[in-house]
Amino acid sequence: MDKKQSNSAPKKQVRVGLVGHMFMGVAHSNAFRNAPIWFDLPVDVVMKAVCAKDSEENLSAFAAKFGWEETEHNWRNLVAREDIDLVSVAVPGDLHRPIVLEAARQGKHILCEKPLANVLEDAVEMVETVSKAGVRSCCGYSYRSTPAAALAAQLVQEERLGRIYHVHARYAQDWPSSPEFPMVWRFDKDVAGSGSLGDICAHSIDMAHFITGLAFVEVSGNLQTMIHERFLDPASPQAGTSRVTVDDVAQFLCNFDNGATGCFEAT
Amino acid sequence: MDKKQSNSAPKKQVRVGLVGHMFMGVAHSNAFRNAPIWFDLPVDVVMKAVCAKDSEENLSAFAAKFGWEETEHNWRNLVAREDIDLVSVAVPGDLHRPIVLEAARQGKHILCEKPLANVLEDAVEMVETVSKAGVRSCCGYSYRSTPAAALAAQLVQEERLGRIYHVHARYAQDWPSSPEFPMVWRFDKDVAGSGSLGDICAHSIDMAHFITGLAFVEVSGNLQTMIHERFLDPASPQAGTSRVTVDDVAQFLCNFDNGATGCFEAT
Amino acid sequence: MDKKQSNSAPKKQVRVGLVGHMFMGVAHSNAFRNAPIWFDLPVDVVMKAVCAKDSEENLSAFAAKFGWEETEHNWRNLVAREDIDLVSVAVPGDLHRPIVLEAARQGKHILCEKPLANVLEDAVEMVETVSKAGVRSCCGYSYRSTPAAALAAQLVQEERLGRIYHVHARYAQDWPSSPEFPMVWRFDKDVAGSGSLGDICAHSIDMAHFITGLAFVEVSGNLQTMIHERFLDPASPQAGTSRVTVDDVAQFLCNFDNGATGCFEAT
Amino acid sequence: MDKKQSNSAPKKQVRVGLVGHMFMGVAHSNAFRNAPIWFDLPVDVVMKAVCAKDSEENLSAFAAKFGWEETEHNWRNLVAREDIDLVSVAVPGDLHRPIVLEAARQGKHILCEKPLANVLEDAVEMVETVSKAGVRSCCGYSYRSTPAAALAAQLVQEERLGRIYHVHARYAQDWPSSPEFPMVWRFDKDVAGSGSLGDICAHSIDMAHFITGLAFVEVSGNLQTMIHERFLDPASPQAGTSRVTVDDVAQFLCNFDNGATGCFEAT
Repeated sequence: MDKKQSNSAPKKQVRVGLVGHMFMGVAHSNAFRNAPIWFDLPVDVVMKAVCAKDSEENLSAFAAKFGWEETEHNWRNLVAREDIDLVSVAVPGDLHRPIVLEAARQGKHILCEKPLANVLEDAVEMVETVSKAGVRSCCGYSYRSTPAAALAAQLVQEERLGRIYHVHARYAQDWPSSPEFPMVWRFDKDVAGSGSLGDICAHSIDMAHFITGLAFVEVSGNLQTMIHERFLDPASPQAGTSRVTVDDVAQFLCNFDNGATGCFEAT
Repeated sequence: MDKKQSNSAPKKQVRVGLVGHMFMGVAHSNAFRNAPIWFDLPVDVVMKAVCAKDSEENLSAFAAKFGWEETEHNWRNLVAREDIDLVSVAVPGDLHRPIVLEAARQGKHILCEKPLANVLEDAVEMVETVSKAGVRSCCGYSYRSTPAAALAAQLVQEERLGRIYHVHARYAQDWPSSPEFPMVWRFDKDVAGSGSLGDICAHSIDMAHFITGLAFVEVSGNLQTMIHERFLDPASPQAGTSRVTVDDVAQFLCNFDNGATGCFEAT
Repeated sequence: MDKKQSNSAPKKQVRVGLVGHMFMGVAHSNAFRNAPIWFDLPVDVVMKAVCAKDSEENLSAFAAKFGWEETEHNWRNLVAREDIDLVSVAVPGDLHRPIVLEAARQGKHILCEKPLANVLEDAVEMVETVSKAGVRSCCGYSYRSTPAAALAAQLVQEERLGRIYHVHARYAQDWPSSPEFPMVWRFDKDVAGSGSLGDICAHSIDMAHFITGLAFVEVSGNLQTMIHERFLDPASPQAGTSRVTVDDVAQFLCNFDNGATGCFEAT
Repeated sequence: MDKKQSNSAPKKQVRVGLVGHMFMGVAHSNAFRNAPIWFDLPVDVVMKAVCAKDSEENLSAFAAKFGWEETEHNWRNLVAREDIDLVSVAVPGDLHRPIVLEAARQGKHILCEKPLANVLEDAVEMVETVSKAGVRSCCGYSYRSTPAAALAAQLVQEERLGRIYHVHARYAQDWPSSPEFPMVWRFDKDVAGSGSLGDICAHSIDMAHFITGLAFVEVSGNLQTMIHERFLDPASPQAGTSRVTVDDVAQFLCNFDNGATGCFEAT
């Protein structure tokens, strides 16, 4: 009977602090937990702390499940910790700017979910600040890592596809099409910034740029909201409804810098 | 041994005069020739005369093949004939207006190919003139007769599809995508009016209206020409090239009168 | 105004006599009527006479519709006519043998629908007799003429597909799957010989041989009848039912002479 | 700053011992490691020990990666351990019988990979022995847990699909189709028992039974080997080749107990 031991040479540690424990917080936790198993990473990932506004009971259960060593309830504390090297931002869009700016000021490397910011000015400020801080940063366009997208990008780079005449992207998720789906923060413009445009069309836009290398020259688009009111709790209609302030359909046409046309749809 | 004889009761005759013997002229000829076999028409179709600017040798061979009784070389003569009840217009778009107006003046029923006219003013004039003349008329949106489209329209009419949120139409023909495909009248704006927009996107637009019953409220679109020069004869490059003056890519977004969005692509 | 005239040089005539005016009789009539329009045939097709056991009223209406010059009610008379060069056999399988043998004896060229015969012995006798008679003959495997099949066969012949490991063919027609579909001769073994095997799987088998050039070495199969009784007239259930004596599901596995495996399904 | 702590009530522990650390050993390790995160299991999974014939260096690295507490190099030792409740068997088929029989004798619960055994007699003996031992057991038909399969089975159970006439299953993996793929134990009949039949067609067979509840009545099949020799090491052809002694194509037809037909293909 032998006690387990690692046969790897010692690697540099990257101690991660995660802000957010909802949908994308789960995704980030799973990634930090399992990436070292499937890929031969150049660093050792240490899941140092997860931060969220929730009861300690809930958050510590979350931490135990995924393997986070500690919990925090205020992102400013997390970002200020000396034993954190990388801050992973997995919260709604209106919080991206303050967390990223503070993390950059503290010299932390940053992984920030998309969309980077809810308005263009914030995004520009964030990119410039992070750039000046000299830390490493990345926006969470996770589809870049899918094998199909990586292969497509490679085929274009190797000029094996010939001239690109047209890009068509459709990203259609079905869950918001049900009027029974309740009000969540993603339907609130003050928090989310936009709806289908920033939530999923952002992926299509990034993919188009990532794969083809083309840049937009002209854009003409259309945002629509099909379902204007959603129940706060579909199981208790008497609890009332709330107004949807973001788009649930986004579509635009564009011309690219090589003369190609594009059509993007998201819903 | 029995000589053949028809067992049908005598029907009213519709004596047809066709203008055009190219791609759509062939299609119209085939339709007039075979429709009575597959459908129990309320009238007898008589293929009286076909008219085209071509040698009598070529045109009479065409007539013999499809069963046209006689030939004409000037559409004004054809339209003026007393033994013609219906004029079928299967020529490029710039000839639609004069033929239709004259046919209406002569009291002929009219089947005119799409697009009805190259500019909106002509179309309005044609519709008003034909309407005043009191003759029957039809624009050649042949896809309305496909079983799939007819079924789709029926499902919408019977309200079995629920609310329509979005219409997406893509009509992509591949032949113009080859730079080797030679210059033809369809690439000449003076003759064709437009390219992919009028030639094929017109079908998508008609289908959307035919199936859903929805009307456009707002439109934002984009016409592009990917291949600007085409060989007059790809087999003889020294014969030179000619400029393509129509779009070979057409796409537009729209909002419909029920709040639905639409996306149309043609190439 | 010019009377039509043909500009073709005179071609040899092939005067056709058709036996059968039901489903495949319609298909043959349509083919003989329209093939000369779409293809530059080396002969002139003359639709001389159609033969069927039906009232003269019905048959002459059929003849008028498709352009058959005369009608016959006894296939022996048709086959014996001196002004017939080719006999086209479009009747149920149990009549193929007597008609083909007599046509060969009379020196007529023969187009016989598939399956050639209801039992192997008949087919062998027919092929040998026709071969000795020195007439031209063809079995109606119409799918050979589809562009996709012709292209596939060409790709194999040009050795552009590499080694063929497996052939899978599924031909599923949906009409017999309804228990409401009435009893017809295709469900009667005495007339049709077999059901899905001879009616549609025969096409798959011919396609496999036509495209790949491979021959069967071993076969193991399974015929099943899912619906054993069918109404003589579903609109009048009291009219009673009749027993289905053929398969409505046919499937077999095979090994080909190059070591490839095959799987055929028809229903 | 709060130390993590679990908020769950204490659950019964299941201490797992895994035999095998190759393809399926990785799959089992990943499952035991992550299942408690995504599902609310009624027990706590303890990854006690992994056992494989490999160097301690390799095996302990494997254990560290996935979180196995200890390593073993002899499956008899593993199975005999008092601190193991469940033995997970993820080794080639010829080892299934001895490990399962011994585990049952030791009173361990058993998860055994498919195919259960290389010959029917072994499988029968194993099922009887395990049944008498009174332990819990499961064969690793992992596709049963896919949402699509579970939904399909549910639809059949609720009788929402009507009568089942036919089952068609095709499971085609592409890796063995390359002649360059080297010799591995899966191509050795003494170890694997069979090739495509047991390796992947077994999944199709289980799925058919799981989803439809039907049982086989008659079977007629065909095993073929398309690639008879494989390089021991394609990078060093001089190292020689070895004979493939299993099928790489398996197909069979069957009749089910409700009269339905079936067609199974695996390659």
